[in-house]
Amino acid sequence: MRQAADILSLRTPGRGLVEITGEVEAWTRRQGMQTGLLTLFCRHTSASLLIQENAAPEVRTDLEAFFAHLAPEDPARYAHDDEGPDDMPAHLRAALTNTQLSIPLIGGRLALGTWQGIYLFEHRRRPHAREVAMHVSGD
Amino acid sequence: MRQAADILSLRTPGRGLVEITGEVEAWTRRQGMQTGLLTLFCRHTSASLLIQENAAPEVRTDLEAFFAHLAPEDPARYAHDDEGPDDMPAHLRAALTNTQLSIPLIGGRLALGTWQGIYLFEHRRRPHAREVAMHVSGD
Amino acid sequence: MRQAADILSLRTPGRGLVEITGEVEAWTRRQGMQTGLLTLFCRHTSASLLIQENAAPEVRTDLEAFFAHLAPEDPARYAHDDEGPDDMPAHLRAALTNTQLSIPLIGGRLALGTWQGIYLFEHRRRPHAREVAMHVSGD
Repeated sequence: MRQAADILSLRTPGRGLVEITGEVEAWTRRQGMQTGLLTLFCRHTSASLLIQENAAPEVRTDLEAFFAHLAPEDPARYAHDDEGPDDMPAHLRAALTNTQLSIPLIGGRLALGTWQGIYLFEHRRRPHAREVAMHVSGD
Repeated sequence: MRQAADILSLRTPGRGLVEITGEVEAWTRRQGMQTGLLTLFCRHTSASLLIQENAAPEVRTDLEAFFAHLAPEDPARYAHDDEGPDDMPAHLRAALTNTQLSIPLIGGRLALGTWQGIYLFEHRRRPHAREVAMHVSGD
Repeated sequence: MRQAADILSLRTPGRGLVEITGEVEAWTRRQGMQTGLLTLFCRHTSASLLIQENAAPEVRTDLEAFFAHLAPEDPARYAHDDEGPDDMPAHLRAALTNTQLSIPLIGGRLALGTWQGIYLFEHRRRPHAREVAMHVSGD
């Protein structure tokens, strides 16, 4: 078994789901392994990772609205507001989703289901530069 | 270090928690490793994985009721309803739990605590065929 | 590639976030790897793992209050109360956060972002003895 690691850098356009399946698959393919384990790790506490349906776009709209409702922007609720009213809700939405995801590599392909896409979930209002650490081990 | 990967296929009876600890432990044991890392990956966006108490059955009933309340079936809330009223809540409940779980293997056994069981959480009303990708690496 | 595994034992002072970044980094460093993957697994169903901001302490207070509100102590809601009114909410808060976290090791360091800390999230009111299984593989 061998391994590789790298950082994926991207800019988000502000709040919402940004699909990164293509970039992640391309990097994984370049490592030339048939079987293995890919791990993605989001290096932020106000953005997160999510695997969701990549077919119907309404799923993403509904997901964003659901998390906005569950952890709303409402300064009266939170003690932490140094970085603006969207900061504490961003931490909560990140805590409810994933900082890290691992996906097995089988037969030279990530074992994603037919309708699964990998998303970076930006929780801040403004565009941000984000980094996802990638690690793969296998043969 | 070496590795193995496979797909666990199962049928769910509709909404609820289906314990898969036995199948997962049996497959892991057959790989004959003493130390390693097992990863499970659910290949669906309307079912998920969860580690929970396998002693008191009321814990599972309460868990199901909690997620049903948190992400309710209510067509008025969601734009996405092509696949029925239970589809979008299924995506939300999957987003709140886990698509993937990894468990260390120590001394030839998965490092589960005394009361921990591994569950596939079916979020759709009807029975479904589900696939969980399994990967283990170790010695 | 080689690997190591161990159990981190700690006592929590009751409900709240306990930072374990230092212990985890120290153990990982002792394994002497430059590149790899660290996995942490919480062996309990009423405590969990979370990566969150380790700068502003109000973030932790707000996080605890948010989960207390989302999955409240309220015996009328739950069938499972054998172990006290804080037990079922503890299972729910654990289900909403993480039983397991994996972090890539790059350049001899965990790929945590500048503001990220690793926390054990104790969900029971009383102090508890908790175990986190640790596994690292790499070179």
